[in-house]
Amino acid sequence: MKAYEMKKFGFDGLTVVDHPVPQPAADQVLVKMHAWSLNYRDLMTVTGSYNPRLKIPQVPLSDGAGEVVAVGQEVKRFKPGDRVANTFFERWTSGTQTDEHARTALGAGRDGVLAEYVALHQDGLVTIPEHLDYVEAATLPCAALTAWNAVVIQGKVKPGDSVLTLGTGGVSIFALQFALLCGARVIITSSSDEKLKRAAELGAHMMVNYRKVPEWGKHVRELNGRGVDLVVEVGGKGTFNQSVAALRRGGTLSLIGVLSREGEANIVPVLMNAIRVQGIFVGSREMFLSMTEAITLHRMRPVVDRVFRFEEFPEALKMMQKGGHFGKICIMA
Amino acid sequence: MKAYEMKKFGFDGLTVVDHPVPQPAADQVLVKMHAWSLNYRDLMTVTGSYNPRLKIPQVPLSDGAGEVVAVGQEVKRFKPGDRVANTFFERWTSGTQTDEHARTALGAGRDGVLAEYVALHQDGLVTIPEHLDYVEAATLPCAALTAWNAVVIQGKVKPGDSVLTLGTGGVSIFALQFALLCGARVIITSSSDEKLKRAAELGAHMMVNYRKVPEWGKHVRELNGRGVDLVVEVGGKGTFNQSVAALRRGGTLSLIGVLSREGEANIVPVLMNAIRVQGIFVGSREMFLSMTEAITLHRMRPVVDRVFRFEEFPEALKMMQKGGHFGKICIMA
Amino acid sequence: MKAYEMKKFGFDGLTVVDHPVPQPAADQVLVKMHAWSLNYRDLMTVTGSYNPRLKIPQVPLSDGAGEVVAVGQEVKRFKPGDRVANTFFERWTSGTQTDEHARTALGAGRDGVLAEYVALHQDGLVTIPEHLDYVEAATLPCAALTAWNAVVIQGKVKPGDSVLTLGTGGVSIFALQFALLCGARVIITSSSDEKLKRAAELGAHMMVNYRKVPEWGKHVRELNGRGVDLVVEVGGKGTFNQSVAALRRGGTLSLIGVLSREGEANIVPVLMNAIRVQGIFVGSREMFLSMTEAITLHRMRPVVDRVFRFEEFPEALKMMQKGGHFGKICIMA
Amino acid sequence: MKAYEMKKFGFDGLTVVDHPVPQPAADQVLVKMHAWSLNYRDLMTVTGSYNPRLKIPQVPLSDGAGEVVAVGQEVKRFKPGDRVANTFFERWTSGTQTDEHARTALGAGRDGVLAEYVALHQDGLVTIPEHLDYVEAATLPCAALTAWNAVVIQGKVKPGDSVLTLGTGGVSIFALQFALLCGARVIITSSSDEKLKRAAELGAHMMVNYRKVPEWGKHVRELNGRGVDLVVEVGGKGTFNQSVAALRRGGTLSLIGVLSREGEANIVPVLMNAIRVQGIFVGSREMFLSMTEAITLHRMRPVVDRVFRFEEFPEALKMMQKGGHFGKICIMA
Repeated sequence: MKAYEMKKFGFDGLTVVDHPVPQPAADQVLVKMHAWSLNYRDLMTVTGSYNPRLKIPQVPLSDGAGEVVAVGQEVKRFKPGDRVANTFFERWTSGTQTDEHARTALGAGRDGVLAEYVALHQDGLVTIPEHLDYVEAATLPCAALTAWNAVVIQGKVKPGDSVLTLGTGGVSIFALQFALLCGARVIITSSSDEKLKRAAELGAHMMVNYRKVPEWGKHVRELNGRGVDLVVEVGGKGTFNQSVAALRRGGTLSLIGVLSREGEANIVPVLMNAIRVQGIFVGSREMFLSMTEAITLHRMRPVVDRVFRFEEFPEALKMMQKGGHFGKICIMA
Repeated sequence: MKAYEMKKFGFDGLTVVDHPVPQPAADQVLVKMHAWSLNYRDLMTVTGSYNPRLKIPQVPLSDGAGEVVAVGQEVKRFKPGDRVANTFFERWTSGTQTDEHARTALGAGRDGVLAEYVALHQDGLVTIPEHLDYVEAATLPCAALTAWNAVVIQGKVKPGDSVLTLGTGGVSIFALQFALLCGARVIITSSSDEKLKRAAELGAHMMVNYRKVPEWGKHVRELNGRGVDLVVEVGGKGTFNQSVAALRRGGTLSLIGVLSREGEANIVPVLMNAIRVQGIFVGSREMFLSMTEAITLHRMRPVVDRVFRFEEFPEALKMMQKGGHFGKICIMA
Repeated sequence: MKAYEMKKFGFDGLTVVDHPVPQPAADQVLVKMHAWSLNYRDLMTVTGSYNPRLKIPQVPLSDGAGEVVAVGQEVKRFKPGDRVANTFFERWTSGTQTDEHARTALGAGRDGVLAEYVALHQDGLVTIPEHLDYVEAATLPCAALTAWNAVVIQGKVKPGDSVLTLGTGGVSIFALQFALLCGARVIITSSSDEKLKRAAELGAHMMVNYRKVPEWGKHVRELNGRGVDLVVEVGGKGTFNQSVAALRRGGTLSLIGVLSREGEANIVPVLMNAIRVQGIFVGSREMFLSMTEAITLHRMRPVVDRVFRFEEFPEALKMMQKGGHFGKICIMA
Repeated sequence: MKAYEMKKFGFDGLTVVDHPVPQPAADQVLVKMHAWSLNYRDLMTVTGSYNPRLKIPQVPLSDGAGEVVAVGQEVKRFKPGDRVANTFFERWTSGTQTDEHARTALGAGRDGVLAEYVALHQDGLVTIPEHLDYVEAATLPCAALTAWNAVVIQGKVKPGDSVLTLGTGGVSIFALQFALLCGARVIITSSSDEKLKRAAELGAHMMVNYRKVPEWGKHVRELNGRGVDLVVEVGGKGTFNQSVAALRRGGTLSLIGVLSREGEANIVPVLMNAIRVQGIFVGSREMFLSMTEAITLHRMRPVVDRVFRFEEFPEALKMMQKGGHFGKICIMA
């Protein structure tokens, strides 16, 4: 079977190799992959900036969806023909995340899923909603679940709350969609009026072009009539302080994503306004299952910007690197 | 000014009296009342079954809305012309309910609001949403806030959850509306197919005629594909056990309303399925404010079955006694 | 190896059989059992009242401790020589309890642990605190964890809170000990002044002989100066209503144990005082681990009333049936 | 009556003035002050670094205790002779802190309590535990309640948890004491072995001299066998990153106190380890009441380093400025 491998860091280190199809162990499920999605973490992993000491060669990507083709003898949850997506952490089923759970993250430190066939523990898979195709389902493991955890599980957003989401990348658009399902008022930022218009079509209540309003933290507070209850902070240095300025006393800032890597932040207002800063690192299988309940009930569709073919993986990464996408960048088998 | 007083228990004990217009103390607000709403508790209070030792004469009713006409010198939150509703507990502003808070409930033990003018502490009032008229706003203090507390504050309902609400009285219809705002799937019961049809028009996902399906607990579980996450239990003896049967392991049963007064309940399945039974006794001013945020954002409208004139208060009570209404019974000045 | 089996319901249906020593599968651990403890559920299971349709023959008992003697190839958490106790649910590791988790409870519906050797999934074992011997450790899986869940996890008891615990059985004495670790004031009931004296020696702050004070709910409230924050309710019919009377507005009643089986309860005060009734069904592995942290830090010792020999299992059950013990009844290999 | 006033910023701007004794309004209580305590915020306020635009003259200090000498006609909670302490926020009784609550903080923006008599709203006072003298009680409003909020209310510390507290100032020593009441293992840092010895006498389990161990974050993790569950972070720039290093995945960092003012912090590990950073700004009256329950039950005594006379207020501030105290610096009438 074909699979991508990182032979060295950088786009030119990506090679399509021929691996034997894995055999599922007793508690494993063999999945024929149909689609994948990209996250910023994948770009950083490939270029070596996520973890320069990463052991390579390694199969990249944390997110994918496909069809079950075989199951080990102890597998009870799945059978051939089932449509599944993988979980970001193969073995974080529920409860508090431990170091043991964290080590089972796919695609950085251990092989990811950009291969024709993948064998995973049955804990590392979930059934996908019927109304989604494989490409849409492939967006769920990292970006969607991160937004779900931030907005619903940790954010506990309720009807009438105000949520600020930054930019129009994958996590931010999911955060917009989930906050709307929660009955919240949603404010979104972008440097592009055209993207803000698309966000409005998805249901965003207020739009802020941060190019035009550099002090957008205070601006959001005024636009909303009061500080917001939650900011889904995916930005880096510079956005943190504006995000804190947008929050109400006692509000929550969900800290997400490797974009923030270089960030130093002013924590004095965090203290003076009794802000909660909550680091979010994707989520558990239990959270994933609650998310698919919501997606199914509302027949919610992930927003996919562009779908590349398997051979175009490097081009997909370049699009991610260039930025400016709206929603998710995907790959199809 | 005109006011109703209970001179003795029973409908014929209700008398319209002429009281002086109250003068607001330093921290009080004088409100010209425009509308009121009825709750089952009011019926029980008037007939004497709520508390046979209740000190009378007493002005009945806990819920109303009107216009501010004067304020005491220390009042900062309101000014003449403001449109307000009262809170059920005049002094429960936030936090855990204490006995001190509970003693400030209006209309049973101390005078209620069925009078042309009412003077209340500024903590005992909230501004009403602009899109609501006084009759609609008068439904909020008890029935709406009870449902909000049950579904949103204590129930913590999130998108994709399943909520069961029993019957089509005031609290149940609010619970339906709020659960929908939370993104939940809602199942509703009634003995009338016509009312179930109206509930469906309001957005209910599944309807169960409990006359036709006596074992509706198990039926709801099957219809929903799994046990529900929350039951808003307003019924009496007999419904409790069915409600528990409808719940998933670890689910929550919100126990509401004096309808349940005579109830003995089988608590064994509560234990075996790790159920949480949560008594709900209306809510605090802080909860009320969060509720009006949601109602305003979604331009949600309370469902009013019928509006009586001030002089028709006994007829309004009789309609409540007869049952079969859909939503709230109100009175207009 | 020797094991007990229920051939038919009743004490005379208990037989010592000779089974082959189990071989651990890839993810299993083989444990040589050194000690066991009894719970009321075991008595009910043996006599047939827990579940008359229980499939027999079956090995009884849910709780035990022993030494690891072999591990399957995928087991990473344990090695031969480790001292372990089993978990009540072999596969409830963390998060919300599901039906799938519940079906893995030992000793009623599937074989329990009253055998010389037991093979369990590595998720179904925890390392025991160093300062405990095997008999003490054998008390932890059901009774201790139930109390921990009730007092610490669901009860969230904090310093200065008041906790009422009923009687001096296994769960109640653990609840007393854990509530003290939480910094709470503890009130305990018993029909025996001598047992109340022993409870006082363990640290209980107030003692109530319920024989002498039939209306002990109100009495506890007066003794404590206010309603208690938590009742750990292990009793049956009759205690529920007194327990509710002892609670403060908004307090929690932890509903525990099969003793309550026949109970009907008056739920009106639950509603009027906004009480939370929380069914507790033991706990997860994650909770078990947090409990052993606390037991280890405080070098807490379980209270063992009497230790029987393996051959005396029927006598141990009879002691349980007779009642009147203080703490746990155990068995030693 | 005598009172201190800040006529200009700086120690030499402090003047003892003669004010008329205030008359309590209807809902106010007049307190004859017997003792006060200092917080770092008071030093910053006096020197002008807390808020350079602060309106002066102003009476300094937020914390004090005394005896009720008169009450307004609507005051029900207190009577002359009662021993009371004030609350830091005169009107934050319970629930989520709002801007309206925050504006009622004493001693910076509005007059504080360093006067012979103070008139406060009855919401702004609490009864003090019987076993404490006025000096000890004067330490409760800010430092003790901040620690209680951090450790108990927001930190939800449970038996067996590990808590790290930095240094030996007022908040840190209270955090040590409260964490012990919660049944936690406590690690404390200081630059002085002698102070660490005193902390050990108070019950600290592990002591770290940060002068000798510059990388104390990692050291604490190793000493404790795992990352700690909570850090009570009162330090400034430099400690934040070490504190994060000491935390377990998913742990909480309570961000406290104006010492941290100049701080920029690296937030990347907050994200990668799903840390929660919780800003703490003292606490509500409801929290204060729960704290006094705990202090009373355990007859806990605040640690007072030194008591100055009223005329020595500037010397007390200089001691605060110099640092190196262990526990609280107080003033006696």
